[in-house]
Amino acid sequence: MYLAEIDKELHAIALPKGPVNLYEPFRYMLDLGGKRIRPALTLMGHTLFNTDHKKAMPAALCIELFHNFSLIHDDIMDKAPLRRGKPTVHTKWNETIGILSGDVMLVNTYKMLADHYSGDVLSQLMKIYTATAIEVCEGQQMDMDFESRNDVTVEQYEQMISLKTSVLLGCALKMGAITGGATNGDANHLYEFGKNIGIAFQLRDDYLDVFGDPAKTGKQPGGDILAGKKTFLMIECRSLANAVDKQKLDALIQTNANNKVNATLELLKKYKVDELTQAEVTRFQTLAMEHLANVQVANEKKKSLVALADYLLNREH
Amino acid sequence: MYLAEIDKELHAIALPKGPVNLYEPFRYMLDLGGKRIRPALTLMGHTLFNTDHKKAMPAALCIELFHNFSLIHDDIMDKAPLRRGKPTVHTKWNETIGILSGDVMLVNTYKMLADHYSGDVLSQLMKIYTATAIEVCEGQQMDMDFESRNDVTVEQYEQMISLKTSVLLGCALKMGAITGGATNGDANHLYEFGKNIGIAFQLRDDYLDVFGDPAKTGKQPGGDILAGKKTFLMIECRSLANAVDKQKLDALIQTNANNKVNATLELLKKYKVDELTQAEVTRFQTLAMEHLANVQVANEKKKSLVALADYLLNREH
Repeated sequence: MYLAEIDKELHAIALPKGPVNLYEPFRYMLDLGGKRIRPALTLMGHTLFNTDHKKAMPAALCIELFHNFSLIHDDIMDKAPLRRGKPTVHTKWNETIGILSGDVMLVNTYKMLADHYSGDVLSQLMKIYTATAIEVCEGQQMDMDFESRNDVTVEQYEQMISLKTSVLLGCALKMGAITGGATNGDANHLYEFGKNIGIAFQLRDDYLDVFGDPAKTGKQPGGDILAGKKTFLMIECRSLANAVDKQKLDALIQTNANNKVNATLELLKKYKVDELTQAEVTRFQTLAMEHLANVQVANEKKKSLVALADYLLNREH
Repeated sequence: MYLAEIDKELHAIALPKGPVNLYEPFRYMLDLGGKRIRPALTLMGHTLFNTDHKKAMPAALCIELFHNFSLIHDDIMDKAPLRRGKPTVHTKWNETIGILSGDVMLVNTYKMLADHYSGDVLSQLMKIYTATAIEVCEGQQMDMDFESRNDVTVEQYEQMISLKTSVLLGCALKMGAITGGATNGDANHLYEFGKNIGIAFQLRDDYLDVFGDPAKTGKQPGGDILAGKKTFLMIECRSLANAVDKQKLDALIQTNANNKVNATLELLKKYKVDELTQAEVTRFQTLAMEHLANVQVANEKKKSLVALADYLLNREH
């Protein structure tokens, strides 16, 4: 999965010495670590078509820098004090430094591409990456808009998670396919594979928060319910509920009563939202695997991608 | 100067309908207007080498979008309530929307390039634009760092204004030269012309704030002095002052006494800072004109650039 190599390459990115208030937060954020799934996808996408994964490394780093940029700015917007157990950039420094170090990190994603690719490959990388970066901003705005609405539909919620998080997985794979010299058709099937795995992953995340085993997730069960978050489960439940239950659910989202989690759980189970959510995860997973099957390379080469999808969608935490 | 055409093209940029909280601020910022000097420079740089200025329009719009992105984020960092007499984006909406609409505008600068250029031209545009965008972030950080220091040297101050504002003028011209098919040598001379005009412009700005004719500038005389800003004049004065006057100056920067402006003016005149600043403006202007003279095209074609430089450096407001 190249994780050690990706970490090494991230650490080796040459940054100017100053201004220190710009580049120390940049370095700090990268050194906080992470699963590095997105850059790994880029390298794995590449090696389906070309054995030299190093050719995809700058594109992989571009995607990981983008992910980290979005975390810095999202943490400011969400007023989050911690990230991976450590103070967020705007907490350790201040919001101004968070905004600006995020900005310079975003520009550096393009530096990665401009410094290492040219010609048609650069054009193609720029197009998919730029379109995706715009979509991620749109998804983040939709997410914030949804906080003050209670009429969000299941379709709108799925579009939001697709834009906010899933398209970046598709983009990561497609960029690897481009540097690997894939056909447009193969590159697009890989993109759809990544995007649908991403949606399935996010829906499963919503599921695990409520129905996961706390001993395995390590999280307070029903944390999303307590926080009044409108996850897929809540939206699906609200769309199915009768008028009385709908009113109950709306009241529960706003309350801080002791029985908040249990009462909500009761409603979710009454409308079989647990089963429906698992079915929706399976639907997107199936869609993803169909796209992967359509990529015109030997199944043998797809094994690591199948394993990664399996890992992402069967994890218990 | 193409201003009407640039405004028309900016207005014609196709934006998605939603999320409205992302794209209304984007449109609002562009519609606030502005002198459009940067995109005009790109078109003028282009027409030195190629008659069809429309080929440079996407690069010109890229630069203007970048300028507007930086204004949105800078206004948040500076807590500025007004921009061109209207509420700033984060005031009219909120900081979160300001951060995110700025982000999506920054990504759209690259969309302009990716959608309209390819091959070697795209590579060259990406390189100079990305390097410049990074420098602008560095300059903004230096500017913020300088606020809490009183040991900034004249050289450091000039480097800061060069990065924060002047390199973007050089970059605007160079991008036009690139789309126009200029040689590297000519493109770089144009870059240096723009950068040095930019530094001269900024130093003159500092000068006019104190020594300009209020009837012409329309500003309160000594506004920078009142605000305790460490402009070129203050830094130059401090570097020349004897120990007693240095102490006086440091005290004046911090005070809100009635005689703040007059007492500071007295010190500035004692050390001839007015004359020295004008000499520094002339020094950078001369440097700029030498670079323009080295661009290998007929003088006839350079007339509009000479006129623009003249306008920028002789304005009284």
